[in-house]
Parts: sequence; C-alpha cells; structure tokens
Amino acid sequence: MTQTIKLAVIPGDGIGKEVVPEGLKVLEAALEGSGVTLETTDFDLGAERWHRTGETITDAELEDIKTHDAILLGAVGDPSVPSGVLERGLLLRLRFALDHYVNLRPSKYYPGVATPLADPGDIDFVVVREGTEGLYCGNGGIVRTGTPQEIATEVSVNTAYGVERVVRYAFETAQARPAHHLTLVHKHNVLVNAGHLWRRVVEEVGTEYPEVKVDYSHVDAATIYLVTDPGRFDVIVTDNLFGDILTDEAGAITGGIGLSASGNLNPVGEFPSMFEPVHGSAPDIAGQGKADPVATISAVAMMLSHLGLGTAAARVQAAVDADMAARAAAEAVGAPLVRTTSEIGDAIAAAVR
Amino acid sequence: MTQTIKLAVIPGDGIGKEVVPEGLKVLEAALEGSGVTLETTDFDLGAERWHRTGETITDAELEDIKTHDAILLGAVGDPSVPSGVLERGLLLRLRFALDHYVNLRPSKYYPGVATPLADPGDIDFVVVREGTEGLYCGNGGIVRTGTPQEIATEVSVNTAYGVERVVRYAFETAQARPAHHLTLVHKHNVLVNAGHLWRRVVEEVGTEYPEVKVDYSHVDAATIYLVTDPGRFDVIVTDNLFGDILTDEAGAITGGIGLSASGNLNPVGEFPSMFEPVHGSAPDIAGQGKADPVATISAVAMMLSHLGLGTAAARVQAAVDADMAARAAAEAVGAPLVRTTSEIGDAIAAAVR
Ligand SMILES: CC(C)[C@H](C(=O)O)[C@@H](O)C(=O)O
Ligand SMILES: CC(C)[C@H](C(=O)O)[C@@H](O)C(=O)O
Repeated sequence: MTQTIKLAVIPGDGIGKEVVPEGLKVLEAALEGSGVTLETTDFDLGAERWHRTGETITDAELEDIKTHDAILLGAVGDPSVPSGVLERGLLLRLRFALDHYVNLRPSKYYPGVATPLADPGDIDFVVVREGTEGLYCGNGGIVRTGTPQEIATEVSVNTAYGVERVVRYAFETAQARPAHHLTLVHKHNVLVNAGHLWRRVVEEVGTEYPEVKVDYSHVDAATIYLVTDPGRFDVIVTDNLFGDILTDEAGAITGGIGLSASGNLNPVGEFPSMFEPVHGSAPDIAGQGKADPVATISAVAMMLSHLGLGTAAARVQAAVDADMAARAAAEAVGAPLVRTTSEIGDAIAAAVR
Repeated sequence: MTQTIKLAVIPGDGIGKEVVPEGLKVLEAALEGSGVTLETTDFDLGAERWHRTGETITDAELEDIKTHDAILLGAVGDPSVPSGVLERGLLLRLRFALDHYVNLRPSKYYPGVATPLADPGDIDFVVVREGTEGLYCGNGGIVRTGTPQEIATEVSVNTAYGVERVVRYAFETAQARPAHHLTLVHKHNVLVNAGHLWRRVVEEVGTEYPEVKVDYSHVDAATIYLVTDPGRFDVIVTDNLFGDILTDEAGAITGGIGLSASGNLNPVGEFPSMFEPVHGSAPDIAGQGKADPVATISAVAMMLSHLGLGTAAARVQAAVDADMAARAAAEAVGAPLVRTTSEIGDAIAAAVR
C-alpha cells in the first residue's frame, strides 16, 4: 500500500475549480489517522491556460504527471475554445498517453433524486467503457477539404489486445458484484468486423468466468432499455463511442450527470489513473458556489478504492450515500437543503471523520 | 400524379406478415374513389426465405423491385439467422442499392400512451437520418482473424455529396414545419474530420434557409435531452449510426417503437422509396393476432405523402390519430380497448372511409 499518495490535481475551468477543493477536503478527511499522507501537485490545464499560452499540455507536464500515483480532474472546457482542441489535445491526450483502457462509470439511482423517469426502480449498474481504441483513436482524415468532392473518414480501430483487456476487467467487475451479470453492448449486425471481434473475445474470456451470466444488446436497443428497464443492467462492457453515449443517457435517468463520477483507469498501474466528475465546467453557474461537489467526491471514493485504500473509499462512499439520503429526507418534508458547494463538502468531510 | 401505384410488398417474417395486410387494407380504403388504383407484387424475402434457399435477395428481385413506385416492408429477421446476414444482405442492400439517402423517422407522443417518462410533455419531432454513408457502408475489415493479434476496423465514410443532400432535405423539412428549427447531432469534438464536414455543410446550406433556426448537440448530450427535454427538438439531422441510436431512444420515450414508422427515401425519385414500421418481427408474439398494425399504417401515410397523394395521406394520419385518441379515452375510463391486429386495421380503414 502507498504510504504517500502523490496526487496530480487538474482543477481545470469553471466549476471544476470549485468542486476539486471539496474533493480534496473529503480526501484529507478520509486519510486522517490512516498513516497515509497526501502530496498534491496542481496542474494549470484547460481553456484558460490555452487562451493564455496556446498550449493544451506540454510533454514535460505529461512526464511530470506520470510520476504521480493518480490524477484528480475537475472539468475542462469553455465555449470560447474551438471544438476538439481541448478534447483531443488534453483530455484524450491524457487518456491515450496514460493508457487509460478502462473508463469506469457507475450509475446509481438515489431515492429522492429528481429523475425524468416515472418509475426509475432500482438502478445500480456499472459501465466499463473501452478508453484507448474505437473511433477515439484519431484515425481517419479528409481529402478535398472544403470542396463539393470532400470525403471525411473516421476509423474505428479495435484490437484483440485492446478488447481482451477491457473485457477481462469487465468480467472481474461482474464477478465481484452480487448479480454476476455482464452485458456486451455493440452493433454487431451492422459493424460486423468489430462486432465479431468483441463477441469472440467475450465468449473466450467468459469461459474463465463460468459464474458470470453474459448477454448481449445492440446499442440502439440498449438506449431503449435504459429508459424502460434500467434495472436489467449490472455490468455493461462496450466500446469507446457507445460507452460515451450510454453513460450520458445513464446519467440522465439517474437524475443528472451532475452526480456521476468516472474513473479513467490503467488497471495494471503502469501509469496513474484519472478520476473526475462526469459533468462539464458549466460556465453558466461558475463562481457562484452553486456547483454540487458530490460527483467529484464520488470520484475520490473511486480513486481511494483504485489505490487499494478500500476502507477509506467505503467511508467516503457511505458519507456520500448518507448525504444523498439527507437530501431526500429534507425534500420529502418539503424543506429541501440549500447549501453552497463548500457547505456540502464540509458536511461530507465531517461525516467521513 | 401516378394513376396506378405499383407497390412492392415485403411482408417478411413474424408479425411483419400480420401488420402488412392491415397496412394494405387501410391503403385501399384511402385510395377508394380517388381514381388511383393499386397494383401490388409480393416479394418473399426474409428469414424464412433465407432458411429455405440460402438467398437474401437476388439481383433479379432487386431489378424487379426497382420497377415499382414504392415498397411496403413489414419486418424481417429471426433469432435463428446469424447476426448481420439479413441486415447486411437484405435491409442495407435495399437501402444502398435504392439510394435511400434519407431515413425519415417522426416521433410523436400521443397523450394516454404509456411512456416511461414522468412528464413527456409535447413530443413532436422528426429525425432525418442519413442512410447511405457513415459506418453503414460496410467499409473496414479484419486482419489476423481469430488470433491475439486481430485488428478489426470499421470506417465511417462521409462525403460532401452525401451530407449535402440529406442536410438539404432536413432544411426543407424544417422550413415546412411551424417551428423552423433544425438541430445537427454529431460528435465533432472527437470525430473531427466527419464533424467538420457536417458542420460546414449545415452552415453553407443554412444560408439558403434564413428562416430556419439551427443549433447543434453532441450525440451524448442528445441522448440526455431526449429524456429530460424532448420537446426542445423539431427536426434533427444526423448521420447513419447516430440516427439509428437516437430514433430507438425516441421510440422508447414516446411509448415504444411499436408505434413508430420509418421512410427510407430516395427523394429524387430515381428509385422506389421504402416504408416500414420501426419495430421488428417479434417472433415471440407472431401468429397470435396481437401485433399492433398502427406503425405500419403510419408508414402507409408517409408513403402516400411521398407519392404526392397528400389528401389521402392526411386522411390516413387523421384516422391513426383518432384511433390513438380513442385508445387514450378508453384507457382513461379504465376500459382499455382489446382488439386483434385485424380489428385495429378494420377500425382505421373504416375511419378512413
Ligand atoms: C469531452 C469528450 C471528449 C468526452 C468523451 O467523448 O469521451 C466526454 O463526453 C466524456 O464522456 O468523458
Ligand atoms: C436492422 C438494422 C440494420 C437497422 C439499422 O441499424 O439501421 C435497424 O436498427 C433500423 O434502425 O432500421
């Protein structure tokens, strides 16, 4: 077990800068008395930095980040930055350079949270999204740009190596959960090449996990099930783009991506893993203390668990669950809690202690 | 105006065979006294045919279909057929060979229909999905099949030619609707090549439609809006795969793809367009008279409109709307209508007359 956590912190833009301090506050509370100390390095990355210097991230910064045990990311982005610059230049650069081949996104419905579904039922599943392949490789190009003869391609690259390792992680995840149920989501009736590879690998790896029940859903059908019967899912494994789409929809049905956390994992520990709230930088509410830090705090729980600090992780998660229950209770008696970003952080940190 | 409609009919498999006769019944009712006569040719295509002959569709059948004015398709497919065989060999073969570059999918919420949303609000939008490009081209391949070094690719091909014509159709559609509102859905922050092309074309064509208000949503965000605020959409234009995904989710929020119709259009009339319910062959309920023919009947209304028979189309659509209202009224007094497939067809045909 690490005795010092060397944490790279990327607050980013907008509310990213407000929620990250709350995540750190709760992290410190969780580590008190554990013998584990925290050492943080701040990285000034995101839209502001890009406007100031024209840089997304330098090679030196990337090397520096690699010397850390984990990364906590708030949110990056601003409408003033052209589309793709920060996504490809910073976020995806980090995911690819740090070989974040598992993007882990739990979806859980907390009773009392406002949801667009008439009857959300019992939603508690995890999406294991591939993070280093598929349509996110940046493979493809344009010929005859800007002409009536323009052709633009995007190539989804899928390797047995890349699919096998994320599928194995998904089986391990399913094996560790009570329901032992894994759903492959793809579109193998149309994307026959990639679809065939994903099916073969799931079948082959599945023989090593006889207790895990495996089924399959086309991505289009999966978007229906998320709305009509989300309780059917336990662990979903899918490619990079389908995972992007499904986890946003999953965020919507559980009451907003404002509550969801995400781990960009390098499970073998060759590079630091990165933990973040799923929400964006929300420039419209930035600087007003209105942002809910609970997704960032859940990201901290994921990080602790990834670093092998299971007890501390469980304490943070329990404190988050208790806070969500307190919100529901207050809501139920018609007196919803009104708290600033840091008041929520304080309350959860106190509960952790 | 056509004086005889030469209609190619593909009942297909399962409930396809039950709903198509109801569609034809209503079509005949709509044409009575109009001076337009109907001439149908049945094509035996689908899972049963494939099991019997090993063929999906022959070149001769395809040529024969091309001599028709339109195609009415029930549903093809059965779990006994390997994935991809009928999709690629029949459905996509038809869409590509007949240059169905617009896939038109209206989504409308009928009050009283059971929906998973707590408050569906006023849902009434149309998805204009590209039908002949993107990831559906069958471009891509596998190297080192079945080995640990396997690489499978899928290539999304987007041309200015292909994007321009579907975008133009979408602008025309938006121009003809009261809200004059078009939303481009893509993922241009990651799929920068194709994304750039789609944006450019929407901008350029948009200058010709100054009354149409244009906005943009990433596909992942669009899956959220469909659940949290579907009323925001009027006309959506998007690529082949995103359209596939969004229209299934749209079906779910409006109370099931069982009610949705789809037109695979060749707007320039070089080849016959194809109209179909969005639902599948539903082998589990086939042969029991339980299938709801309303999606097929809506497809017939789309077909009439495409063939320039606007009055007949409006009568069919009004009869469908009236039937949906009757269902809601019966439901509201706790006495839901219980009718067989053909009883529903009879009722709507009578209303058309
Ligand atoms: C910002 C964007 C590159 C990113 C993605 O598409 O992966 C985001 O949508 C996410 O899900 O983390
Ligand atoms: C059956 C399949 C090929 C098809 C598609 O993906 O287009 C279907 O899902 C649809 O939406 O019509």
